[in-house]
Order: sequence, then structure tokens, then C-alpha cells
Amino acid sequence: MIPPLPDMILENLIRAALIEDLGTNGDITTRTVIPAGIRYSAQIRAREAGVVSGMQLAALAFRLIDPALRFDALCPDGTAFQAGETLARIEGEAASILSAERVALNFAGRLTGIATMTAAFVAETRGTAARITCTRKTTPGLRLVEKQAVLHGGGFSHRVSLSDAILIKDNHIAAAGGIRPVLQAVKARASHMMRVEIEVDRLDQLAEVLDEGGADVVLLDNMDTPTLRKAVAMAGGSVVLEASGNMRLDRIAEVAATGVGYISVGALTHSARTLDLGLDF
Amino acid sequence: MIPPLPDMILENLIRAALIEDLGTNGDITTRTVIPAGIRYSAQIRAREAGVVSGMQLAALAFRLIDPALRFDALCPDGTAFQAGETLARIEGEAASILSAERVALNFAGRLTGIATMTAAFVAETRGTAARITCTRKTTPGLRLVEKQAVLHGGGFSHRVSLSDAILIKDNHIAAAGGIRPVLQAVKARASHMMRVEIEVDRLDQLAEVLDEGGADVVLLDNMDTPTLRKAVAMAGGSVVLEASGNMRLDRIAEVAATGVGYISVGALTHSARTLDLGLDF
Amino acid sequence: MIPPLPDMILENLIRAALIEDLGTNGDITTRTVIPAGIRYSAQIRAREAGVVSGMQLAALAFRLIDPALRFDALCPDGTAFQAGETLARIEGEAASILSAERVALNFAGRLTGIATMTAAFVAETRGTAARITCTRKTTPGLRLVEKQAVLHGGGFSHRVSLSDAILIKDNHIAAAGGIRPVLQAVKARASHMMRVEIEVDRLDQLAEVLDEGGADVVLLDNMDTPTLRKAVAMAGGSVVLEASGNMRLDRIAEVAATGVGYISVGALTHSARTLDLGLDF
Amino acid sequence: MIPPLPDMILENLIRAALIEDLGTNGDITTRTVIPAGIRYSAQIRAREAGVVSGMQLAALAFRLIDPALRFDALCPDGTAFQAGETLARIEGEAASILSAERVALNFAGRLTGIATMTAAFVAETRGTAARITCTRKTTPGLRLVEKQAVLHGGGFSHRVSLSDAILIKDNHIAAAGGIRPVLQAVKARASHMMRVEIEVDRLDQLAEVLDEGGADVVLLDNMDTPTLRKAVAMAGGSVVLEASGNMRLDRIAEVAATGVGYISVGALTHSARTLDLGLDF
Amino acid sequence: MIPPLPDMILENLIRAALIEDLGTNGDITTRTVIPAGIRYSAQIRAREAGVVSGMQLAALAFRLIDPALRFDALCPDGTAFQAGETLARIEGEAASILSAERVALNFAGRLTGIATMTAAFVAETRGTAARITCTRKTTPGLRLVEKQAVLHGGGFSHRVSLSDAILIKDNHIAAAGGIRPVLQAVKARASHMMRVEIEVDRLDQLAEVLDEGGADVVLLDNMDTPTLRKAVAMAGGSVVLEASGNMRLDRIAEVAATGVGYISVGALTHSARTLDLGLDF
Amino acid sequence: MIPPLPDMILENLIRAALIEDLGTNGDITTRTVIPAGIRYSAQIRAREAGVVSGMQLAALAFRLIDPALRFDALCPDGTAFQAGETLARIEGEAASILSAERVALNFAGRLTGIATMTAAFVAETRGTAARITCTRKTTPGLRLVEKQAVLHGGGFSHRVSLSDAILIKDNHIAAAGGIRPVLQAVKARASHMMRVEIEVDRLDQLAEVLDEGGADVVLLDNMDTPTLRKAVAMAGGSVVLEASGNMRLDRIAEVAATGVGYISVGALTHSARTLDLGLDF
Repeated sequence: MIPPLPDMILENLIRAALIEDLGTNGDITTRTVIPAGIRYSAQIRAREAGVVSGMQLAALAFRLIDPALRFDALCPDGTAFQAGETLARIEGEAASILSAERVALNFAGRLTGIATMTAAFVAETRGTAARITCTRKTTPGLRLVEKQAVLHGGGFSHRVSLSDAILIKDNHIAAAGGIRPVLQAVKARASHMMRVEIEVDRLDQLAEVLDEGGADVVLLDNMDTPTLRKAVAMAGGSVVLEASGNMRLDRIAEVAATGVGYISVGALTHSARTLDLGLDF
Repeated sequence: MIPPLPDMILENLIRAALIEDLGTNGDITTRTVIPAGIRYSAQIRAREAGVVSGMQLAALAFRLIDPALRFDALCPDGTAFQAGETLARIEGEAASILSAERVALNFAGRLTGIATMTAAFVAETRGTAARITCTRKTTPGLRLVEKQAVLHGGGFSHRVSLSDAILIKDNHIAAAGGIRPVLQAVKARASHMMRVEIEVDRLDQLAEVLDEGGADVVLLDNMDTPTLRKAVAMAGGSVVLEASGNMRLDRIAEVAATGVGYISVGALTHSARTLDLGLDF
Repeated sequence: MIPPLPDMILENLIRAALIEDLGTNGDITTRTVIPAGIRYSAQIRAREAGVVSGMQLAALAFRLIDPALRFDALCPDGTAFQAGETLARIEGEAASILSAERVALNFAGRLTGIATMTAAFVAETRGTAARITCTRKTTPGLRLVEKQAVLHGGGFSHRVSLSDAILIKDNHIAAAGGIRPVLQAVKARASHMMRVEIEVDRLDQLAEVLDEGGADVVLLDNMDTPTLRKAVAMAGGSVVLEASGNMRLDRIAEVAATGVGYISVGALTHSARTLDLGLDF
Repeated sequence: MIPPLPDMILENLIRAALIEDLGTNGDITTRTVIPAGIRYSAQIRAREAGVVSGMQLAALAFRLIDPALRFDALCPDGTAFQAGETLARIEGEAASILSAERVALNFAGRLTGIATMTAAFVAETRGTAARITCTRKTTPGLRLVEKQAVLHGGGFSHRVSLSDAILIKDNHIAAAGGIRPVLQAVKARASHMMRVEIEVDRLDQLAEVLDEGGADVVLLDNMDTPTLRKAVAMAGGSVVLEASGNMRLDRIAEVAATGVGYISVGALTHSARTLDLGLDF
Repeated sequence: MIPPLPDMILENLIRAALIEDLGTNGDITTRTVIPAGIRYSAQIRAREAGVVSGMQLAALAFRLIDPALRFDALCPDGTAFQAGETLARIEGEAASILSAERVALNFAGRLTGIATMTAAFVAETRGTAARITCTRKTTPGLRLVEKQAVLHGGGFSHRVSLSDAILIKDNHIAAAGGIRPVLQAVKARASHMMRVEIEVDRLDQLAEVLDEGGADVVLLDNMDTPTLRKAVAMAGGSVVLEASGNMRLDRIAEVAATGVGYISVGALTHSARTLDLGLDF
Repeated sequence: MIPPLPDMILENLIRAALIEDLGTNGDITTRTVIPAGIRYSAQIRAREAGVVSGMQLAALAFRLIDPALRFDALCPDGTAFQAGETLARIEGEAASILSAERVALNFAGRLTGIATMTAAFVAETRGTAARITCTRKTTPGLRLVEKQAVLHGGGFSHRVSLSDAILIKDNHIAAAGGIRPVLQAVKARASHMMRVEIEVDRLDQLAEVLDEGGADVVLLDNMDTPTLRKAVAMAGGSVVLEASGNMRLDRIAEVAATGVGYISVGALTHSARTLDLGLDF
């Protein structure tokens, strides 16, 4: 469903992770105790249920260590799976499989954790038009693949970097002297290819934004549910509304029902639990 | 207490994270709405208590974006802090502070989360000689700094890469034909500067290891507490023992009391919750 | 007016250019014939009038070769200058100035050429609301700095990369089966932080776009002036219109007068003439 | 005729250009609107006549994005073509072709522009022994491929970097105290594998160079045609002569007829117009 | 016998060496004088006897320059060979073979030199349990492959980097206030996966080390043979002993006979003579 | 005498060497046993006489590890020194000095070894016009600094890469069909900024080269002294002559006296012994 990225964009990331793990002298254990020529068949198996992400990366890790390994993804990225299910099968030289194992699982476990957590949030929005989205609170170096994991879990992307879109937060407003001068600067200087979002904490700020114009999206920060509902009514569809701030799973259904378009959840990328995946020989 | 690493080792990591966040066009929001010449004073403040890690990295992030910023760490890495405490103070051009903020906080929040979780595990070992250690289940690209965060929290390091030490797992034993041939290979071929650890699941395997010799450390995988106690008695101090496998916080005191030397906890690095840090102007 | 980018984003580009020029053995000429300790004062002087861009890069080139050189930009980026005017002054070791000269001028001459050409196009839009913008037809490796040069000349930016915004061209429409399925896919899957632009060649296509919705901007490709005028009338301000395709300088005033919001000009970055700048001792 | 460079030298350049264009999140448009599995056949077609360069780079761009694409160069680098001619054919996944298109064309259009402009200058030297050569006024990062484009157009290379050869300019002479000390330094210290060129503005300087010896090539800067003719007579074949400085196309035949060996033209690389190439599906 | 490293770890090294040799413009000689399409068969032949190392690297050099070349290693790394023997055979485009030749031979000659010198030292230990090992006195950038060459010659590895193991030298002891505080620091803070070695010059220091405990290995620096013999007696097998300092070939048999476990020889990597290998067509 | 290179060209080399040595976890020994705040003064001292090279690199190693260290070079690169002399003094944090020591000495020892060996060869040419030069048989990754070391020892450089000059060897001649076609190709296609050298084994080949023309330098390979003398007579100053092939120190005076211009010695870079330098606290 979500098309894979070109391997080329991902290879440097995987290569760096393999070199980090191999260290300055390679996999000493395997080189010391595993005789050459022993062939194995291994499976990546899930110890718990979830939604897969990171299989493209795992495949690259095995291929970069040994292009002769055969990797078959049984559950491609974006697929839901049950506990005990086999996600992928790897065949070839035992030493190669063992040397790539940890990096492959570190990527797949972490990203599958994110996809799985996202899917749980998305499930709470069922029956509404609200969409779950992530933030820039990602792991340094992994933003691209963590954002993909959110897509694999059924969520939507947000800004991927500071150059994608304009998002004006409270600190920007304070530094620039208020909502109106900020929105005027945007109207005067922003490219037509840049979406503009602005953060508000209170309904009177929302009113000011709607009056001044120039924003496509308004981020409603840390509002309770009745306030969110009023904000939806005030905006009347003229801008996209994004609810944000401490969006725990047990509050999502209620927030989604207010009519906001997006609910952004930092925890998807900064605090998802790694899913338990193992490599069985 | 833990001496800082040379900045040189860390700079590429921070630079890459900043470039990932700045994207192909820089911080469009700040460039569009913040006039040049506005100076600010900002604080990194903790919303909850913990043990700090990542301040050296945060300092580098601000300095790389703008060498003219002044950064004062009030709580250096390895220090415990209370909710509400100020961890660092930054002064200078507002636009620069805003452009570096997210990367600085992404590092500091994540690593402080690891140090804080480690400290909680270490607290459970009080009164015993057991030490808490991490594993190679780290975030790709961040192993070095996550291992430092474990040290900042009072834990001990384990292998940092596959070339640091020999750790023979069940899959290696299977592929190489058993415990004795593996240990014989190690004795014949390993450098005198390499520690050797071997994983066992059962006490009869431990007996075989002790009898054959050649291991400095034995990893006791997924054993219950009485079995761990028996293993300690069997080894009688002749090797270091490391308990591993699903070591949840509520079990640590009991495991530490068995007399094992080390308890290794993958969750410290793969599933620590990001600590809530904010930048207040 | 346009705030400078953090030097950190630009340094790798300059460093690579210097290393390309120094080659595998450094500046042999200077090392062979210029005795150490000879100090010079040099000026970057314009042989013709224009609008400056690339001075930040030139400053970096001199500083990277020799941190002891003093560089004063008399005309900062974005400033108009006359033929004969001095743009910057450099003082220090003669050998260092000579070794950095070519790289500094290659950047400054090229980017000043782009800013100057942009300013000429912008001048033709005076009295209208039309804005001049560039395209992705940039020099490989220099996109960021060429886009800045367009801003320095008074133009506006467009997408900086394929991940900034969605721009659906004729080939996309053909491959995906028409305008409506494409816009439906966008509405179903695009993030709320992504602007959406779609290219049309004919007014009936514009009508289809307006009817289906989902586009923020419509690119009017290769239309004559009367057709552009009709397109403006049809859109009635509901979307931003961008005129594109062979936009020569002598046609800009007429196109700007039709009421389109943007005029995009590939030649700004792919065919601007390098401005003649020299280094005088 | 000009043998291709090993792909290995060029890959980093293309990879960097693709990553610059894909940005931090990949080709969002294609990923959003083009379903997987749609296969296409596309042609790179010339909208005007010229001499091709950059086809090896275009082929690499498509291959790096998707190794399964098939690329056939119908006009290899160095070949002349007519307006409307097909230069290359690409077959495979539509999404891959669309994602690589812009980078492939940006390289091919720019380099074909250089080769085409070079060929026009070379044509003016017909019937003489004069050769057209380029300078170091190249695009930062593209020097190697721009120099190749000059070869593809029938020109000759000059220094590729500061470490290839010694070229003493007026500023060097001034800083080092005159022509004689400079040439004496060269004779005392230069390697036997380094060609030596020296710039002169006047015939008395040429006389001094010839008298002192030590130069293989003399650059005659900004001389009018009669002076060039006198210089040729003075040198009498003892050194190679290179005419330089504002060498416009309409002056080349006349300059070539003076008997100089080389005519160097900075504009070939700093101001060639990008040739209009398109990708047709 | 010594399993090869994954090519992935070595490729950047070879690529960098090729680019260093090709310079900014490629192999001008070959491109100028060798017509395309000439196929050759070449052999790497040894002008003197030795033990091979670096064949994996030579193979990579040829493959990176031209993936169509066929490379057959007749003597894989770790094999002894006679003068005149053919170590490898390469077939394919003559120009490609010539362009890769120097880099391939520079690696193979240097590393074969190290393996050959190591084998000579190892031969002197025959009949004893002593092992030959190298030090960190390696060529910057080549440590990994030089350590492999020592293994190929029958030696053992030592620390590969400062993060592999703890080695406390005289300067550390001086700076930290003596042997006992240093060993106490190690016992309090070192990971269980780190071997600990300490350098001593005198037997009373050895006694202090043995009494305090905490060291796995003791480096006996610059001791004469009778002193080494006494050290072996004192240690009585409780620690590993490594003799070091000016270990010339003619002294090895005598030192090995003292009963030390390891003899470390810096000259293996810092002063081995390059072995004479040639490429014959 | 030999001006230093810009630090910028050398920094990546030193940085890479430091990272190679620090490994994935930094200098564990120093971090474990050296308390912070201990300041030291250290000297780089020569254990034997020689000519220094690599001090600029050593200075960079200390500065990159800790910019607060103070480094004073008492013997700058190119200076002769006696056994026991102090070459440089370093002051600052003891831990920093210890962490940078090995890399600094590895560079300085190796390069000083090359400079010292070169000086010995140069001494043998005294009273003749012959110059000592090196070859491309350098350590992969260190060519630039090894070539500088040859200059520091009083020698001359040769090609630094394959793109500096044309050097036609026996294999090229064989592949291209003889000396005349090779020289004709060079005359037809080589740039005027490229020196041309051709290798000959016999005097009849030299005659053919002189007759055909097109070469600036002739490499006389493996000729005995009487033959070299004849070659000098034959050439009569019309080309530069370079004697090569097994040029041992004891033969240099005799070869220099034949009248050849250059004697090239591969051993200078491939087999120089590392000079014994130590760091004393």
C-alpha cells in the first residue's frame, strides 16, 4: 500500500549501523567459532502481534553483509501479523546471518513497535474523519524511517524537516511580537508551495488567526475536549485543525469525535516500545 | 564522575542530526518570521525528575548552529534532578536557539530517559554486588551515546560492538557443534585481549563450560531465581555470571540477591521512555 | 533582508569545492613561487552591475583555507551594486588568498549571476501582484544556494526537493489515469502539511481540477496570454495560479498583468550567465 | 572516441544529486499518485541540435534509483545530434523513471550545453592547428564532468586542479617580485612531471620569459590579434602559446589564424546555456 | 583458515585508495593511449617467497574499477608461496586492469610484507606456547587490514582500538598515582567484558600487580631474558604475560623459551618491508 | 622551506585516524584510570637522528582531540635533528595528551622515517645535478603526506595521481602496439598542461622515442651504469632522463654521476623504517 522507498536512500543508514555494530575489527565471535561453509535457514519470528515496519531495512542489512544471502519477506511493511508468525526467511552462510542479525532486528523491532502503536491510535479514530499524525520528536538519524513506520501503521506524516512547511509555535509568536505580525510576514514572504500552520492555546487566539488569515492549519495545543469542540465550530472548515499535546490512547476516541482533522502524537516516535522479534534458526 | 568523550567523536552525529532536521532548505519558519537581532535567554527545564544524560550533545547542537550562543549546563551528565529543575541555560540570537532546539531536546530527552531508567534498576541492586548492564539492543547510530547514558545512570557497559569481546550465543553453539568445540576454538584462536562470554540456558551446560574452561563470563539466559542461585553456587567465583532475559524492574532485587555479578537489561536502550524536557523562553 | 543560513549547512559544500580545486597535492603554483610571510590586501570587485549573492560562501572559502584571513563583505548578499564597486575586502597571507580565490569567485560569480537575472525578471512584474519563482532545474549539488540566490534577487522559492510538496505533472496524470483519480489519491493520502500543485495545458483541464478540488496551486503550462487571462477569471481566486513554460524576460510584464500569482522561470538557475567578478590585489 | 570514466568516480556525484532532489522524504508526488506496477517506456529527446555529454551520468541516475530499469544510450557521449532526435530510451517501473528524471536531465542538459558550445568554438578553428581549451571557471563540484563535456565537444583539457600543473598569473608575479625570480623558483623546485605556464600581458614580458626559460607554455592575456601574431613570431615554436581573455566566438577564427596553439575560453564552463532536453513517455 | 571479512567493511578503504590514485581527472595515460576493446590476461606474480595477505583487497580494487573484470585468487590470504609463483589471475579490458594495478599492488605488497615478517617471527616460537602479536603502531587508516595480515602470518591480534580493552602504561600509572590506585579504579569501574593489561618495567612492580589483582595480562617491558624467566616464575600462571620492547627476530626463540604467553612486536606493522609483487601481462 | 599545506586538506585524514584508534567507545583506559583535571607537560623526543616530517599532522591530532592543548613544534617539518632532541612540546589535560599520543606518533614516526631515508639518498647525489624522487608506491590513503615527507627530506615529487601527468609504461606500450603509436596518440590528444614520460628498457627504444618526439621525460628502467651513461649521451639534453628500478642507496652516487636528471626510488615510501619517536612526560 505504502510504496517502498528507493533502497539508495536507505543504504547509507544501514551501512552505518552495520559498521557501528561490526566495530573496528568485525564480528570476532563468528569469525572465531563458526567454520566457513555452514549453511542455515533462519526466520524472523514475532513474539507478539503487531503491524510490520522495517522489513525493507532488515533485508538490506542481510544483503549488505552478504549479497549471496536469500531474504524473503513474508509480511511486507504495513501488514498486520499475529504472535508467533514468521515475518521473513533468510537462507545462506550461517556466519553471515549471525553477523547481520542484531542490526536487522534492531531496525525491525523498533519500527514495528512504532507501526504497531500507530495502528492502535488509528483504531480509536474509526468512524470519524480524524487522522493520526506524528511530530518531529523522532530519533536523531532515523526520522525518515520512523515516519514511514507511522505510515505503515495507518497514520499520516507531518513535517519531515524544518524546510517542508512553516509551523509557527508559541515561542516564534513571542519572539516576533504576536500572531498578526507573524501571519503578515508569512503572507509577504512564504513560497506558494509551503503549507503554514500556527499554534494556539486559546480560542481568542484562534479567532485572531482566522481573522488575519494566512494559515492553512491551526494546531490546538493542550485544549480539553469541550474547547476543541468549540474550536471546530469556530473554524467552520475554513482551516484544518490539529489537536496536540499529551494525546494519550484513552483520549483519542473522544478527541477524534470533536471533528478535528488531525491528532498529533509525539509518543509514536519518541516512546514506542520495541516489539519483540527474534531470529530462530 | 564519567569523564566526557572528546567532542570530536560526537560532532558528526550531531551535525547529521541537525542536517536531517534542517532539511534541504533550512529552518523556513524561523527565517520567515523571526527578525534578525532578537536576543533571547532560554532554559532547558525538566517536567519530571530523573538523571541527566545528553547535555554534552545538546551543547554541541546549539554551538554547531551558532558558535556565538552561550550554553551553560547547570546539571552536567550523570547528575540527578527534580521535576521543574533547570538543566541548562542558553543565551543568544533567538533564531539560532529556535533552530537547534528540537535536535538538542531529542538527544537530551531520549538519553536522559535511558539514564533515568538505568538509575531505577541500579537502585534495586543496593546492598548487593550485582551491577546493571545494557546490551547491543540499541538504536542504530546511537550506540555510543546510549551506552554513555547507561553509565550516567550508574550502570556498566557491555560490548559496544562485535569486535570488543567474544559472546557465544545459543545459535553460535548450534552452528559450531556444541559447547566444547566452541570453547576449544576460542582457546586456540582468540587474542589475549578479548574477554570471552558464553550463553547457557541450563545448569548442565554451565557445568560443561566450567569443566572445559576458556570462558571469563557466563550468561545465564532466562533462568528463574532458584536456578540462578544454584548457578552461583556451582561457579563458586571461578567465572563472572551475568543474568539475562526479561529482567523487569520488579525482579531485579531478587536476582541481585542471588549473587550474580551482572544483570543485563535490553530494555534500558530499546524501550526507555523519553523524558519530558522543554525549552522555556 | 533574507537571513543568512547557518554556516554549518554550507561548509561541506565549500570544503568539497576547495578540495576539488586543490586536488591531490594542493596549490603547487603558490607553494612553489610565493614565499611565506607576504601579506596582501585584495578586493572582490564587480566588472558589471548586478545584485550580489554568494558572499557568505566566498567568506567561508577564504576562512576554510586560512582562518587567519580577514574578510569584510561590503555588499552583503541581496544588495544591488554598480560596475566597478568593491563587494568585499580580504587581508592576510598572500598565498592563502591566492589558493582560495578561484573557488570563492566561482561561487560568487555564478550566484550573483542568478540573483541579477532574477532581479531583472522581478522588475518586469512591478505594479502587479505576480511573483517570480524558480524551478528544480538547478545545478546538481547547488540547489540550496541557487534557490537562495533567487531570493536575493527578489524572487520566491518553489519546491526545494521532491519531498517538500506535491507537484503533479502531465506524465503523472498520464501514468495514474487522469486528473480526477490523481486528485482523489492526493485527498486520501497526502499529509495536511503538503501543498498540492497540478499542471494543466488546457482550460478544460483547469475546470476539471477546480471541480474535483484538492489542489492548492495550478500550474498553467505553455499558455498564451489570452488563455492565461481566461484561466485567472475561471479560477476566481479559489486557487493560486502559476504560469510556466518558456517565460522569457520580454513576456513577463504581459504575463504578470494577467493576474496570475506566480511566474516560474527555469532559466534563472539553468542558464544564468556568470557575472564577471575579479580579485584585485 | 573519449573513453568513459569508471562509473566508480562518478557515482558519489550522482548519488549526492539524487539525494539532494529526493530530499528528506523521497518523491512524495510519485509515491502518492503513481500505483506500483505501472511500466513505461520513455525517451530522452533533444528539442534542439547539439553534441551530447552526460549520458553516462543520466544512465547512472536511473540505475541508482532502480537497478531494474533498462537504459539504452542511442547517442553516446561525444556524438552530434539533430533537433528531435532520441538520445536514450528507458524502460521499467513508471515511478522509478519519474523519480530519476529531473536529476538525469539536469546533468545531461547542462553538459550537453557545454559540449555543444565547445563544438561551435572548435568549428571556428578548422584549418588551423589551434585547439580550444577550458579553464578552472567551472561549477563547484562538477569540474571533472564539465571538463569531460569539453572533450566531448572536441576541445582539450587544461589544469583540472591546482595540483596538476603550475600556472603563474599576474598576481603571483607581483607577489613574488617579478618574472625572473618566479621562473628561477620554478626551475629550482618544481617536479619534472609538472608543466609550467606563465601569464604575460605584454610582449616585453614574453621576451623576458623566453630569455629566462623554465616555462613550457605562455598564456597571452587580453592581447589583440596583431599582438598575438607578433608573440607567435617572437616565440618561434620554443614554447606553447595560449591566447586567453574574453575569447568570444566571433573572434576565434581570427585568433586561431595567428598561429597560437591554444585558445582558452572560460565561458565554455561558466556560461554555457543548458540545452533543452525532455523526457517523453 | 582466517575467514574473510565482509567486503562491505573494506570497500570504503579501497574506494578511497582508488580515488586517491585516480585523482581529479582519472587515469589520463590509459585514457590517452589504450584503445577501448583490448582484452588482456594478467597475473599477480611474486618476485620473492612469502605468505600472502591483501588478495581480498586486490580483488576489490579490480572489481570496483570494472565489475566485468574476472579475478581468480590462486593463493588466498594466509597461504605461503614461493618466488615466481602466480598469486592471482585477472582477465578483461586492458585499460581497466592498468587503472587498478597500482592500488591493488600497493595493498597486496604491503600486507604480504607484514604477513611474511609475522610468519618469520612465528617460526622462531616453534616448540613453545608463546604467541606472536602486534601493537597499535600501525599505519593510520590501515589498522584493520594490517591486523588481518598479522593473523594471515600466523600471529595473534592485540587491541584493535582504544575501546577494545584496557592497557595501562607507565604514563597512565604516573598520572594516576601508582599501580594500586589504577588497579582499584579498574576493579571499581571497568565492564566485565573488558580485558585489563598493565605494563611493568621491574619485578617489584609485577609483585605489586599480582598482590593487588585486577589485571588479566601483564606487559613486561624491556626486560632481559633472565628477568623474563623470573617474571614467569613469579606469576605462576595466575596472569597472562606479554614480553615487549625491542623484540628483534634473533631474540624471539630465547624469549619464547622463557614461558611468556605473548611476544608483541611493533615492527610487524610499522616497519615491515613491502614484498615485491608485480603484474605481468 | 617547504610551505605547510592548509590544515583543511589534512584534517579529514587525522580525524579518520583518531576515530580508527578511539574505536566505537573512546579511550577506555584513560577514561577509567586518569582523573579529570590532571595537567601534564609532554615532549615528543627522538630516540635517533633524522629529518622531521609529520609535525603538522601531530599538532592536528592533539588539537582535534582537545583544542585546549598547547602544541609547540621545536623542529618544524624539514629540519634535521639529533638523537635525544625534543621535537615538540605539548601541555594540557593529561587524559587528552594520552588519547592523542599514538596517532600523533604513528604519523610522525612513519613520515620522519621517509624524510630521513630521503635525506640519505639526497646526500649521495651531492656534487651532481641529479635529483631524488619517489613513485606511486605509497601507502594507500597517505600519498599526499608521504610525498610531502619526501620533499621534507630534500627530494622531489613525481606524479601524485594518475591525473597529474602521462607516464607510459611497458604494459601500455604492449597494449597499444608499440612506442610510435603511443607517442602519436599523446601528441594528438594530450593537453598542453600534461607532462609526458615514457619508460624504456633498452637504448634502441630510447632512440625510437627521441626520433618520434612527444615525450618530455624518459624513464630508463633497470639499466646498468654504463648503459645509463650512454643514454645520457644519446639524449643530449633534449629530454629529461629518470633512472629507475632497484635504486639502492649504495648505487646512488654512481648513478647520479652518469648525468641523469632524476633517480626515482620506490623504497622511500614503500619500505622506509619508522623512526623511533617517543612521548615523554
